[in-house]
Amino acid sequence: MGTTLILRLRIENVPGRFGQVATAIGAAGGNIGAIDIVRAERGALIRDVTVQVVDPRQGDEIARSLGRLPGVEVLHVSDRTFLMHLGGKIEVRPRVPVKNRDDLSLVYTPGVARVCQAIAADPEKAFSLTIKRNAVAVVTDGTAVLGLATSAPWPPLPVMEGKCLLFKQLAGVDAFPLCLDAREPDQVVAAVRALAPAFGGVNLEDIASPRCFEIEERLRRELDIPVFHDDQHGTAVVVLAGLLNALRLVGKRLEDLRVAVAGAGAAGVACTRMLLAAGVGNIVVCDRQGILYRGRPGLDSPVKRWVAEHTNPEGRRGALRDALEGADFFLGVSGPGLLTGEDLRRMAPDAVVFALANPVPEVDPAEAGRHARVVATGRSDYPNQINNCLCFPGLFRGALDCRAREINEAMKLAAARAIAATVSPDQLSEDYIIPTVFNRQVVQ
Amino acid sequence: MGTTLILRLRIENVPGRFGQVATAIGAAGGNIGAIDIVRAERGALIRDVTVQVVDPRQGDEIARSLGRLPGVEVLHVSDRTFLMHLGGKIEVRPRVPVKNRDDLSLVYTPGVARVCQAIAADPEKAFSLTIKRNAVAVVTDGTAVLGLATSAPWPPLPVMEGKCLLFKQLAGVDAFPLCLDAREPDQVVAAVRALAPAFGGVNLEDIASPRCFEIEERLRRELDIPVFHDDQHGTAVVVLAGLLNALRLVGKRLEDLRVAVAGAGAAGVACTRMLLAAGVGNIVVCDRQGILYRGRPGLDSPVKRWVAEHTNPEGRRGALRDALEGADFFLGVSGPGLLTGEDLRRMAPDAVVFALANPVPEVDPAEAGRHARVVATGRSDYPNQINNCLCFPGLFRGALDCRAREINEAMKLAAARAIAATVSPDQLSEDYIIPTVFNRQVVQ
Repeated sequence: MGTTLILRLRIENVPGRFGQVATAIGAAGGNIGAIDIVRAERGALIRDVTVQVVDPRQGDEIARSLGRLPGVEVLHVSDRTFLMHLGGKIEVRPRVPVKNRDDLSLVYTPGVARVCQAIAADPEKAFSLTIKRNAVAVVTDGTAVLGLATSAPWPPLPVMEGKCLLFKQLAGVDAFPLCLDAREPDQVVAAVRALAPAFGGVNLEDIASPRCFEIEERLRRELDIPVFHDDQHGTAVVVLAGLLNALRLVGKRLEDLRVAVAGAGAAGVACTRMLLAAGVGNIVVCDRQGILYRGRPGLDSPVKRWVAEHTNPEGRRGALRDALEGADFFLGVSGPGLLTGEDLRRMAPDAVVFALANPVPEVDPAEAGRHARVVATGRSDYPNQINNCLCFPGLFRGALDCRAREINEAMKLAAARAIAATVSPDQLSEDYIIPTVFNRQVVQ
Repeated sequence: MGTTLILRLRIENVPGRFGQVATAIGAAGGNIGAIDIVRAERGALIRDVTVQVVDPRQGDEIARSLGRLPGVEVLHVSDRTFLMHLGGKIEVRPRVPVKNRDDLSLVYTPGVARVCQAIAADPEKAFSLTIKRNAVAVVTDGTAVLGLATSAPWPPLPVMEGKCLLFKQLAGVDAFPLCLDAREPDQVVAAVRALAPAFGGVNLEDIASPRCFEIEERLRRELDIPVFHDDQHGTAVVVLAGLLNALRLVGKRLEDLRVAVAGAGAAGVACTRMLLAAGVGNIVVCDRQGILYRGRPGLDSPVKRWVAEHTNPEGRRGALRDALEGADFFLGVSGPGLLTGEDLRRMAPDAVVFALANPVPEVDPAEAGRHARVVATGRSDYPNQINNCLCFPGLFRGALDCRAREINEAMKLAAARAIAATVSPDQLSEDYIIPTVFNRQVVQ
């Protein structure tokens, strides 16, 4: 993963000094990129040195070892990630120019009154005369953001902003980030219902399980615009898309598949439902206590009980390893390092493994590759990244354009098939079952 | 005020036909602007004719009379106001480019996680690393929007969007419009509190009196970002700015002033409070039942009781006309046509009259000009427009930049003095007491 630092250094103007700097950076494991001269001072040069490091701690080490060199002073360490976030990643801009009093009288009082009256007379007009037509609220209650433990509601804001940026960049959707200060599901539902009128859709994000099921279900029932919990359905759509292409490679059919799922949270449940809807008959789901079966102790939410009743037709019991026995497809949407490569030997030939825990997958991808034919992860530094960004921009683009009142199973299945179809037969391989985010066809 | 229509006409290609069209438009009172040829068909030309009309009904008349002309067909009538609103007036755009997987890993997962962690460790960092730094929520509950009677919550959206557009254009503030589906004050307060974390300020807009006082008061107490009800304080700041300059002209002092206010709603109360804070001692406020005095029947809100107790030091009673007796300054923030020019004869010499009811002022401005030395209105087609746009962009710009936790009386007084000071002594005249919205100095 790594990060990029920019070190601003004052280096004494003595032959060989910069060589010492470069050696020190290399010795501490840093990889030097661009080197710029910022300005010259008497007897010294101010330079910006871009360095790739594995993690921020390595950056600190490099700065410390440079500080110990004679004739070298570390003026500032900036981090490219933080620089990109400075001042926020999105902005709100006028789409029409207002240059004079005449323009003002059209976009604001008095002219705007007639537009309001037209919408009051025919509320549907809001979809042509306001941003409701193209606006999506990206909403979190902060309960499941990257494992952050926080009392303030705004630490997740950079994630929501990033999502809004991608909405615009990938699909032209005007999305606005909202980090709710509302921890009870009732409060979250009330707040989203109250703020919904200005929007054409709601993208729920990083809301903990099982509350996410209740919140989404209630909002879908109460609002007449699409409500979509991306952690559930975005993941499910992209998983199904990847699976469809993997099956083209290994020559198996959805109906014949034996599937083992690790994780019964938001993503695990949504993927299971999606696979069932797509026609998979034999799915076994595991939580921390092992395989879910009808009547098992510890089925502590209505959703888990539903899963236990609608999966595991053979009534299997046991641990995750037992669920792998004879499975064609393993889907991990749980935690790091649950399995070894050896465990995957229990699977059927030509096994497909999606280990999506982030940043550390359920099984080491390199090890998994020795036993499975196709391996996918959630990471950008391995082949076959299962990334929600493939789904949400295009799905909302389509829903807004056809003014859908909801995003239903049929739309999600269609989206999964469409994403899968962007990989042509001659592109398809064990290392390319899913398109990249920057493939322009994906959104369409 | 008027509006601009674009008529698309198919006109038979016969000499003199267009002359008949122009004559018909003129006879119906329309004023022809640009004339464009869209395309030629066999024997006919398709033309776009821009016509200035007084109101939309006149536009209908023109279209009807053109339709009766031989060889002329009206294909389409578009309205420039509606054209400017098509698709919404604002958009959300990325501030940083995301061109490849490397950029993506900085603005979204995994890089964004470190930014979230930094904000969780130090919540103040949200003001440098997210849009919270520069974002204002423009919020209405739809209870007082241009006299609209509506059941849907989104008809006010074009007004809120217009305001957001002006926030960005005039002061670089990223404002987002929210039309709440929340009619009880408790619901409004709960919704705004829930959505506040992503914002650096809240601009309340078009909320009916007296609920606006309670909603603003509670939000100011509960939130640690500035909450500002523009209909109250924006108006009050610009009124005081205009008054300060009018007094420079007539040579009177705030402390010596006798003031009559018509209207005890949101704007009337806020202006009264502001004038008291600025040092005016003698203010008499009237509602529909006449002069407010301590103990009067019909003081049906805590705010009106407060006004009755803190104004009218002489304990006057009677109607609005009685309040005008000897007044130096009349402020109308009520309804249309309450007074005649004759009524203003009761005022002191060198009287100042602000008749701000919109679109029809409390007294006809031309008549008022015969009796008062300085006249201002809320309209753009008379001199001295008292326009909130002079206040809110700059005030929020300043509050965001210094990370103010509230907008208090001292800040509003400073804003009024600053706006007044943008009119230099050599510019100051009876017809120019207040700068135009497009004066770039105003925001600073």
